[in-house]
Amino acid sequence: MGRWEPDARGRLAKAALALYAERGYEQTTVAEIAKRAGLTERTFFRHYADKREVLFAGSGELEGRFVGAVAGAPTSAPPLDALTLGLDAVAEMFADQREFASRRQAVITANAELRERELIKLASLVAVLTDTLRSRGVAEPAASLSAEAAVAVFKVAFERWIAPDEERPLAQLTREALAELKAVTSGA
Amino acid sequence: MGRWEPDARGRLAKAALALYAERGYEQTTVAEIAKRAGLTERTFFRHYADKREVLFAGSGELEGRFVGAVAGAPTSAPPLDALTLGLDAVAEMFADQREFASRRQAVITANAELRERELIKLASLVAVLTDTLRSRGVAEPAASLSAEAAVAVFKVAFERWIAPDEERPLAQLTREALAELKAVTSGA
Repeated sequence: MGRWEPDARGRLAKAALALYAERGYEQTTVAEIAKRAGLTERTFFRHYADKREVLFAGSGELEGRFVGAVAGAPTSAPPLDALTLGLDAVAEMFADQREFASRRQAVITANAELRERELIKLASLVAVLTDTLRSRGVAEPAASLSAEAAVAVFKVAFERWIAPDEERPLAQLTREALAELKAVTSGA
Repeated sequence: MGRWEPDARGRLAKAALALYAERGYEQTTVAEIAKRAGLTERTFFRHYADKREVLFAGSGELEGRFVGAVAGAPTSAPPLDALTLGLDAVAEMFADQREFASRRQAVITANAELRERELIKLASLVAVLTDTLRSRGVAEPAASLSAEAAVAVFKVAFERWIAPDEERPLAQLTREALAELKAVTSGA
Protein backbone atom coordinates (compact mmCIF):
# COMPACT_ATOMS: atom_id res chain seq x y z
CA MET A 1 0.00 0.00 0.00
CA GLY A 2 1.65 3.19 -1.26
CA ARG A 3 5.25 2.12 -0.81
CA TRP A 4 6.27 4.59 -3.57
CA GLU A 5 5.10 7.47 -1.32
CA PRO A 6 7.42 7.58 1.69
CA ASP A 7 5.39 8.11 4.88
CA ALA A 8 2.25 9.08 2.97
CA ARG A 9 0.18 8.37 6.06
CA GLY A 10 2.22 10.69 8.26
CA ARG A 11 2.27 13.42 5.62
CA LEU A 12 -1.49 13.24 5.21
CA ALA A 13 -2.05 13.46 8.96
CA LYS A 14 0.27 16.46 9.25
CA ALA A 15 -1.38 18.24 6.30
CA ALA A 16 -4.85 17.52 7.66
CA LEU A 17 -4.07 18.93 11.11
CA ALA A 18 -2.49 22.05 9.61
CA LEU A 19 -5.59 22.65 7.48
CA TYR A 20 -8.04 21.93 10.32
CA ALA A 21 -6.19 24.51 12.42
CA GLU A 22 -6.06 27.10 9.63
CA ARG A 23 -9.56 26.80 8.16
CA GLY A 24 -11.51 24.77 10.64
CA TYR A 25 -12.28 21.07 10.48
CA GLU A 26 -15.62 21.41 8.74
CA GLN A 27 -14.33 23.68 6.00
CA THR A 28 -11.47 21.35 5.04
CA THR A 29 -11.95 18.81 2.23
CA VAL A 30 -10.09 15.57 1.58
CA ALA A 31 -8.98 17.03 -1.78
CA GLU A 32 -7.29 19.92 0.02
CA ILE A 33 -5.58 17.60 2.49
CA ALA A 34 -4.22 15.44 -0.31
CA LYS A 35 -3.02 18.48 -2.26
CA ARG A 36 -1.26 19.98 0.78
CA ALA A 37 0.51 16.66 1.34
CA GLY A 38 1.49 16.49 -2.33
CA LEU A 39 -0.53 13.31 -2.79
CA THR A 40 -3.77 12.23 -4.48
CA GLU A 41 -7.23 11.78 -2.99
CA ARG A 42 -6.95 8.14 -3.92
CA THR A 43 -3.85 7.84 -1.74
CA PHE A 44 -5.73 9.56 1.11
CA PHE A 45 -8.47 6.96 0.96
CA ARG A 46 -5.93 4.14 0.98
CA HIS A 47 -4.88 5.35 4.44
CA TYR A 48 -8.02 6.86 6.00
CA ALA A 49 -11.74 6.19 5.62
CA ASP A 50 -12.57 9.91 5.88
CA LYS A 51 -11.24 13.17 7.29
CA ARG A 52 -12.42 12.35 10.80
CA GLU A 53 -10.46 9.11 10.78
CA VAL A 54 -7.21 11.12 10.60
CA LEU A 55 -7.93 12.34 14.14
CA PHE A 56 -9.00 9.02 15.63
CA ALA A 57 -6.72 6.55 13.83
CA GLY A 58 -4.61 6.26 17.00
CA SER A 59 -7.53 5.24 19.25
CA GLY A 60 -7.37 1.59 18.28
CA GLU A 61 -3.65 1.40 19.02
CA LEU A 62 -4.12 3.21 22.34
CA GLU A 63 -6.84 0.77 23.39
CA GLY A 64 -4.81 -2.20 22.20
CA ARG A 65 -1.70 -1.18 24.10
CA PHE A 66 -3.60 -0.28 27.24
CA VAL A 67 -5.57 -3.52 27.30
CA GLY A 68 -2.56 -5.60 26.28
CA ALA A 69 -0.48 -4.34 29.19
CA VAL A 70 -3.31 -4.87 31.69
CA ALA A 71 -4.02 -8.39 30.40
CA GLY A 72 -0.30 -9.20 30.55
CA ALA A 73 0.25 -7.97 34.11
CA PRO A 74 1.31 -10.58 36.69
CA THR A 75 -1.71 -12.56 37.90
CA SER A 76 -1.05 -11.39 41.44
CA ALA A 77 -1.13 -7.66 40.55
CA PRO A 78 -4.03 -5.74 42.16
CA PRO A 79 -6.29 -3.99 39.59
CA LEU A 80 -4.74 -0.54 39.90
CA ASP A 81 -1.22 -1.94 39.53
CA ALA A 82 -2.25 -3.76 36.36
CA LEU A 83 -3.84 -0.55 35.06
CA THR A 84 -0.67 1.38 35.88
CA LEU A 85 1.24 -0.88 33.48
CA GLY A 86 -1.38 0.03 30.88
CA LEU A 87 -0.93 3.75 31.56
CA ASP A 88 2.84 3.34 31.16
CA ALA A 89 2.40 1.56 27.84
CA VAL A 90 0.15 4.35 26.56
CA ALA A 91 2.56 7.07 27.73
CA GLU A 92 5.35 5.33 25.84
CA MET A 93 3.24 5.24 22.65
CA PHE A 94 2.73 9.02 22.85
CA ALA A 95 6.32 9.81 23.87
CA ASP A 96 7.34 11.90 20.81
CA GLN A 97 3.82 12.94 19.78
CA ARG A 98 3.29 15.96 22.01
CA GLU A 99 2.98 18.50 19.19
CA PHE A 100 0.65 16.32 17.14
CA ALA A 101 -1.45 15.52 20.21
CA SER A 102 -1.71 19.16 21.19
CA ARG A 103 -2.82 20.30 17.73
CA ARG A 104 -5.24 17.43 17.46
CA GLN A 105 -6.82 18.33 20.81
CA ALA A 106 -7.32 21.95 19.73
CA VAL A 107 -9.21 20.79 16.63
CA ILE A 108 -11.37 18.41 18.67
CA THR A 109 -12.15 20.98 21.37
CA ALA A 110 -13.40 23.39 18.69
CA ASN A 111 -15.94 20.95 17.23
CA ALA A 112 -18.95 19.47 19.05
CA GLU A 113 -19.19 16.38 16.84
CA LEU A 114 -15.51 15.57 17.42
CA ARG A 115 -15.82 16.12 21.16
CA GLU A 116 -18.67 13.59 21.18
CA ARG A 117 -16.56 11.14 19.22
CA GLU A 118 -13.74 11.55 21.76
CA LEU A 119 -16.11 10.90 24.68
CA ILE A 120 -17.39 7.76 22.98
CA LYS A 121 -13.84 6.47 22.46
CA LEU A 122 -13.03 7.06 26.14
CA ALA A 123 -16.25 5.36 27.28
CA SER A 124 -15.40 2.42 25.06
CA LEU A 125 -11.90 2.30 26.61
CA VAL A 126 -13.43 2.15 30.11
CA ALA A 127 -15.73 -0.69 29.00
CA VAL A 128 -12.92 -2.74 27.47
CA LEU A 129 -10.64 -2.23 30.49
CA THR A 130 -13.48 -3.25 32.81
CA ASP A 131 -13.95 -6.47 30.82
CA THR A 132 -10.21 -7.11 30.93
CA LEU A 133 -10.14 -6.74 34.71
CA ARG A 134 -13.14 -9.03 35.07
CA SER A 135 -11.32 -11.65 33.02
CA ARG A 136 -8.51 -11.33 35.56
CA GLY A 137 -10.96 -12.21 38.32
CA VAL A 138 -11.63 -8.68 39.62
CA ALA A 139 -15.18 -8.44 40.99
CA GLU A 140 -17.68 -5.62 40.49
CA PRO A 141 -17.83 -2.78 41.34
CA ALA A 142 -14.03 -2.83 41.78
CA ALA A 143 -13.44 -3.60 38.09
CA SER A 144 -15.59 -0.70 36.78
CA LEU A 145 -14.28 1.75 39.37
CA SER A 146 -10.64 0.89 38.74
CA ALA A 147 -11.09 1.22 34.98
CA GLU A 148 -12.91 4.55 35.38
CA ALA A 149 -10.18 5.80 37.71
CA ALA A 150 -7.37 4.80 35.34
CA VAL A 151 -9.01 6.50 32.36
CA ALA A 152 -9.59 9.62 34.50
CA VAL A 153 -5.88 9.60 35.38
CA PHE A 154 -5.02 9.30 31.69
CA LYS A 155 -7.35 12.17 30.71
CA VAL A 156 -6.08 14.53 33.40
CA ALA A 157 -2.41 13.71 32.76
CA PHE A 158 -2.90 14.03 29.00
CA GLU A 159 -4.52 17.46 29.32
CA ARG A 160 -1.63 18.69 31.44
CA TRP A 161 0.92 17.17 29.06
CA ILE A 162 -0.34 19.11 26.01
CA ALA A 163 -0.72 22.40 27.91
CA PRO A 164 1.50 25.30 26.70
CA ASP A 165 4.98 25.31 28.28
CA GLU A 166 4.55 21.87 29.82
CA GLU A 167 7.79 19.94 29.33
CA ARG A 168 7.52 16.93 31.61
CA PRO A 169 6.99 13.60 29.83
CA LEU A 170 3.52 12.05 29.79
CA ALA A 171 4.76 9.06 31.79
CA GLN A 172 5.77 11.35 34.65
CA LEU A 173 2.49 13.30 34.58
CA THR A 174 0.56 10.02 34.57
CA ARG A 175 2.44 8.79 37.63
CA GLU A 176 1.87 12.11 39.37
CA ALA A 177 -1.87 12.07 38.59
CA LEU A 178 -2.09 8.53 39.92
CA ALA A 179 -0.35 9.55 43.14
CA GLU A 180 -2.70 12.54 43.43
CA LEU A 181 -5.75 10.32 42.94
CA LYS A 182 -4.49 8.05 45.71
CA ALA A 183 -3.99 11.09 47.93
CA VAL A 184 -7.50 12.51 47.39
CA THR A 185 -9.21 9.15 47.85
CA SER A 186 -7.31 8.54 51.08
CA GLY A 187 -8.84 11.75 52.39
CA ALA A 188 -5.90 14.12 52.00
CA MET B 1 -48.79 26.88 32.99
CA GLY B 2 -51.28 24.03 32.61
CA ARG B 3 -52.75 24.12 36.08
CA TRP B 4 -55.95 22.59 34.71
CA GLU B 5 -53.99 19.44 33.79
CA PRO B 6 -52.86 17.81 37.05
CA ASP B 7 -49.24 16.64 36.74
CA ALA B 8 -49.23 17.06 32.95
CA ARG B 9 -45.44 17.00 33.01
CA GLY B 10 -45.24 13.69 34.83
CA ARG B 11 -47.96 12.13 32.66
CA LEU B 12 -46.13 13.19 29.50
CA ALA B 13 -42.85 11.76 30.75
CA LYS B 14 -44.49 8.46 31.66
CA ALA B 15 -46.29 8.23 28.31
CA ALA B 16 -43.09 9.08 26.42
CA LEU B 17 -41.05 6.40 28.18
CA ALA B 18 -43.73 3.79 27.62
CA LEU B 19 -43.83 4.60 23.90
CA TYR B 20 -40.02 4.71 23.55
CA ALA B 21 -39.87 1.25 25.10
CA GLU B 22 -42.71 -0.13 22.95
CA ARG B 23 -41.89 1.38 19.54
CA GLY B 24 -38.38 2.71 19.87
CA TYR B 25 -37.35 6.28 20.52
CA GLU B 26 -36.92 7.26 16.88
CA GLN B 27 -40.31 5.91 15.81
CA THR B 28 -42.22 7.83 18.48
CA THR B 29 -43.72 11.25 17.68
CA VAL B 30 -44.67 14.07 20.03
CA ALA B 31 -48.27 13.73 18.78
CA GLU B 32 -48.34 10.10 19.96
CA ILE B 33 -46.85 10.99 23.34
CA ALA B 34 -49.47 13.70 23.89
CA LYS B 35 -52.28 11.38 22.82
CA ARG B 36 -51.12 8.59 25.13
CA ALA B 37 -51.02 11.06 28.02
CA GLY B 38 -54.52 12.34 27.14
CA LEU B 39 -53.13 15.81 26.43
CA THR B 40 -52.44 18.01 23.42
CA GLU B 41 -49.19 18.58 21.53
CA ARG B 42 -49.40 22.19 22.62
CA THR B 43 -49.33 21.07 26.24
CA PHE B 44 -46.33 18.84 25.47
CA PHE B 45 -44.40 21.82 24.14
CA ARG B 46 -45.26 23.88 27.20
CA HIS B 47 -43.31 21.33 29.25
CA TYR B 48 -40.58 20.01 26.93
CA ALA B 49 -38.66 21.50 24.00
CA ASP B 50 -38.71 18.17 22.12
CA LYS B 51 -38.96 14.43 22.68
CA ARG B 52 -35.30 14.16 23.67
CA GLU B 53 -35.80 16.72 26.43
CA VAL B 54 -38.15 14.30 28.21
CA LEU B 55 -35.15 12.08 28.88
CA PHE B 56 -32.70 14.79 29.92
CA ALA B 57 -34.93 17.23 31.78
CA GLY B 58 -33.52 15.94 35.07
CA SER B 59 -29.88 16.66 34.16
CA GLY B 60 -30.05 20.28 35.16
CA GLU B 61 -31.51 19.46 38.55
CA LEU B 62 -28.94 16.71 39.10
CA GLU B 63 -26.08 19.09 38.30
CA GLY B 64 -27.60 21.84 40.42
CA ARG B 65 -28.04 19.61 43.47
CA PHE B 66 -24.61 18.03 43.11
CA VAL B 67 -22.81 21.36 42.72
CA GLY B 68 -24.92 23.05 45.40
CA ALA B 69 -24.01 20.45 48.00
CA VAL B 70 -20.30 20.59 47.11
CA ALA B 71 -20.26 24.38 47.19
CA GLY B 72 -22.07 24.37 50.53
CA ALA B 73 -19.75 21.86 52.22
CA PRO B 74 -17.77 23.10 55.23
CA THR B 75 -14.70 25.05 54.08
CA SER B 76 -12.46 22.60 55.88
CA ALA B 77 -13.86 19.53 54.08
CA PRO B 78 -11.33 17.77 51.83
CA PRO B 79 -12.45 17.52 48.17
CA LEU B 80 -13.74 13.96 48.31
CA ASP B 81 -15.74 14.69 51.47
CA ALA B 82 -17.36 17.68 49.77
CA LEU B 83 -18.14 15.52 46.73
CA THR B 84 -19.64 12.84 48.99
CA LEU B 85 -22.20 15.39 50.18
CA GLY B 86 -22.99 16.01 46.51
CA LEU B 87 -23.43 12.28 45.86
CA ASP B 88 -25.79 12.06 48.84
CA ALA B 89 -27.86 14.97 47.54
CA VAL B 90 -28.18 13.31 44.13
CA ALA B 91 -29.12 9.96 45.66
CA GLU B 92 -31.88 11.68 47.61
CA MET B 93 -33.22 13.30 44.43
CA PHE B 94 -33.51 9.89 42.76
CA ALA B 95 -34.86 8.09 45.83
CA ASP B 96 -38.30 7.09 44.45
CA GLN B 97 -37.34 7.21 40.77
CA ARG B 98 -35.86 3.76 40.32
CA GLU B 99 -38.42 2.51 37.81
CA PHE B 100 -38.34 5.69 35.75
CA ALA B 101 -34.52 5.73 35.82
CA SER B 102 -34.31 2.11 34.77
CA ARG B 103 -36.71 2.53 31.83
CA ARG B 104 -34.97 5.72 30.79
CA GLN B 105 -31.57 4.01 30.78
CA ALA B 106 -32.88 1.18 28.58
CA VAL B 107 -34.07 3.73 26.01
CA ILE B 108 -30.75 5.57 26.09
CA THR B 109 -28.65 2.42 25.82
CA ALA B 110 -30.56 1.42 22.68
CA ASN B 111 -29.84 4.67 20.82
CA ALA B 112 -26.39 5.96 19.81
CA GLU B 113 -27.42 9.61 19.68
CA LEU B 114 -28.87 9.42 23.20
CA ARG B 115 -25.79 7.63 24.53
CA GLU B 116 -23.67 10.49 23.16
CA ARG B 117 -25.95 13.02 24.80
CA GLU B 118 -25.59 11.19 28.12
CA LEU B 119 -21.79 11.19 27.84
CA ILE B 120 -21.81 14.93 27.14
CA LYS B 121 -23.97 15.59 30.20
CA LEU B 122 -21.60 13.58 32.38
CA ALA B 123 -18.53 15.35 30.95
CA SER B 124 -20.23 18.67 31.65
CA LEU B 125 -20.93 17.54 35.22
CA VAL B 126 -17.23 16.72 35.72
CA ALA B 127 -16.27 20.15 34.37
CA VAL B 128 -18.69 22.02 36.63
CA LEU B 129 -17.65 20.03 39.71
CA THR B 130 -13.98 20.69 38.89
CA ASP B 131 -14.69 24.43 38.73
CA THR B 132 -16.59 24.25 42.01
CA LEU B 133 -13.66 22.53 43.74
CA ARG B 134 -11.22 25.07 42.31
CA SER B 135 -13.39 27.86 43.75
CA ARG B 136 -12.99 26.10 47.09
CA GLY B 137 -9.23 26.38 46.76
CA VAL B 138 -8.51 22.83 45.58
CA ALA B 139 -5.44 22.82 43.29
CA GLU B 140 -4.98 20.90 40.04
CA PRO B 141 -4.77 18.03 39.31
CA ALA B 142 -6.56 17.20 42.58
CA ALA B 143 -9.71 19.10 41.55
CA SER B 144 -10.11 17.33 38.19
CA LEU B 145 -9.22 13.93 39.58
CA SER B 146 -11.63 14.22 42.51
CA ALA B 147 -14.46 15.35 40.23
CA GLU B 148 -13.77 12.51 37.78
CA ALA B 149 -13.67 10.02 40.64
CA ALA B 150 -16.97 11.24 42.11
CA VAL B 151 -18.77 11.05 38.76
CA ALA B 152 -17.33 7.58 38.21
CA VAL B 153 -18.71 6.55 41.60
CA PHE B 154 -22.11 7.97 40.64
CA LYS B 155 -22.14 6.16 37.28
CA VAL B 156 -21.15 2.80 38.72
CA ALA B 157 -23.57 3.05 41.66
CA PHE B 158 -26.39 4.21 39.36
CA GLU B 159 -25.88 1.28 36.98
CA ARG B 160 -26.05 -1.16 39.88
CA TRP B 161 -29.10 0.58 41.33
CA ILE B 162 -31.20 0.14 38.17
CA ALA B 163 -30.13 -3.46 37.59
CA PRO B 164 -32.91 -6.08 37.77
CA ASP B 165 -33.61 -7.37 41.30
CA GLU B 166 -31.45 -4.70 42.92
CA GLU B 167 -33.27 -3.40 46.00
CA ARG B 168 -30.70 -1.40 47.95
CA PRO B 169 -31.20 2.36 47.87
CA LEU B 170 -28.97 4.47 45.60
CA ALA B 171 -27.47 6.25 48.62
CA GLN B 172 -26.19 2.95 49.97
CA LEU B 173 -24.77 1.82 46.62
CA THR B 174 -23.07 5.20 46.24
CA ARG B 175 -21.42 4.86 49.62
CA GLU B 176 -20.35 1.31 48.82
CA ALA B 177 -18.87 2.35 45.48
CA LEU B 178 -16.99 5.16 47.19
CA ALA B 179 -15.58 2.73 49.76
CA GLU B 180 -14.61 0.36 46.95
CA LEU B 181 -12.84 3.16 45.06
CA LYS B 182 -10.89 3.99 48.20
CA ALA B 183 -9.98 0.32 48.55
CA VAL B 184 -8.72 -0.10 44.98
CA THR B 185 -6.72 3.14 45.04
CA SER B 186 -5.09 2.17 48.30
CA GLY B 187 -3.82 -0.94 46.55
CA ALA B 188 -6.21 -3.49 48.02
